[in-house]
Amino acid sequence: MKKITVFNHVTLDGFFAGPNGEIDWFQTLHEDEWDRYTSEQAKISGNTLMFGHTTYTMMKSYWPTPEAAKAYPEMAYVMNTSPKIVFSKTLKGGEEGPHWKNIRVLDEIRPEEILEFKEKEDITILGSGTIVQQLTNLNLIDEYDLVMVPIILSVGKPLFKDVKKTDLKLLEARSFKNGIVLLRYLSMSQ
Amino acid sequence: MKKITVFNHVTLDGFFAGPNGEIDWFQTLHEDEWDRYTSEQAKISGNTLMFGHTTYTMMKSYWPTPEAAKAYPEMAYVMNTSPKIVFSKTLKGGEEGPHWKNIRVLDEIRPEEILEFKEKEDITILGSGTIVQQLTNLNLIDEYDLVMVPIILSVGKPLFKDVKKTDLKLLEARSFKNGIVLLRYLSMSQ
Repeated sequence: MKKITVFNHVTLDGFFAGPNGEIDWFQTLHEDEWDRYTSEQAKISGNTLMFGHTTYTMMKSYWPTPEAAKAYPEMAYVMNTSPKIVFSKTLKGGEEGPHWKNIRVLDEIRPEEILEFKEKEDITILGSGTIVQQLTNLNLIDEYDLVMVPIILSVGKPLFKDVKKTDLKLLEARSFKNGIVLLRYLSMSQ
Repeated sequence: MKKITVFNHVTLDGFFAGPNGEIDWFQTLHEDEWDRYTSEQAKISGNTLMFGHTTYTMMKSYWPTPEAAKAYPEMAYVMNTSPKIVFSKTLKGGEEGPHWKNIRVLDEIRPEEILEFKEKEDITILGSGTIVQQLTNLNLIDEYDLVMVPIILSVGKPLFKDVKKTDLKLLEARSFKNGIVLLRYLSMSQ
C-alpha cells in the first residue's frame, strides 16, 4: 500500500491560507538551506499531486508561467509534469494545457476509488483544505508534513476545520535558518 | 527590562484547551526526558506566574493538593511558592491559602502597570487565553514557548483568537521522545 501525505505551510494559529486564499505570508521565506531542501524533495518524490478545485486553479495559474520557471526551475518542472488528481464538480476535460499535463478530474470523493489509487501511487495533497478535511475524516491520510511558518496570521482558512479528533505520531521536527520548522506526523487513525 | 513569556501546550490545530477547558489531551504525555526538562525549567525559572481568573481557579484547585505534591513534587513546589498575578474583576483579597501564597489580584489590564512589573520581574503566563490575546495586542509579550502536542483536537479554545498579525523569530525547536515539540519564538512586535 502506498500512502497519502498532506504537505502544507501553516501559521502558528493553524491557517494554511489567508481569508481570501493569500499565501504571501510564506512566499518570501527564501533561504539556501530551505530552498535546497524543497527542491530535493520535489525531485525525488515522483508523487501524484492531489488538489481541490481552488488550489488547482491557483497552481495552474502560476506554475506553467515563465516567471515560475525562472524563480523555481526544479519545482516548476515537477509541478508541471507530475500526475495530478483534481476534485471538482465543474471542471471539464480539456484542462490540460501544453505545460500542465496528466490530469484526472473527479467529481467527488469516493473512498474506494482513493484506496485504489493508494494501491498504485504515492499521493501528495497541496493546499486544498476541504480535501484534507474530508480525507482525514475518512481515515485516508497517512502523513501530515507541516511547514510551520513563524507568524500568527490572525485570520485565514484553518487547515483542520471540522476535522475529527486525531492522534498523531511525531516522525521528525527539523528547523531551518529562516525560522521554518518542518513537522512530520504519522496519522494514528490508519 | 525583564520579559513576559507565554508558556502553553497547544494542539496542531491551535487550541490550548478543550471547549470546556479540558487539558486531559496533554496530561498523559509523561516521559523521562520531557519530565526532567519541565522540572528543571520550573526550578531555575524564579518567574512570577500570571493568570486569568479561569486558569487561576483551575491551578489553585490542583497544585496545593497532596496528589500534586506526590505526582510532581518539584513543579508543585514552584507553583505553590512562586509570586502570582491574577486578573479578575470578582476575586477579592483573602485568596491566599496556606499553600498558595503571594498573590496580587488586578481588576484589569493597565499597560503602564504591566511595564512596571517588567522593570522588576520576569513573568510567565500559563493558560489564560484571554490574557495572552490582550497582551499580544498591546505588544507586551516578549516570547512564546509553545509545547506542540501531537494531536488534532478538532474543537477547543484557540490560543490566538482575535490576536493581531504578529511576526515571530524562531529561537529553538526541540523534539522529545513523547512526540512533543517545544517551539520557542521571540515576538517581533517588541
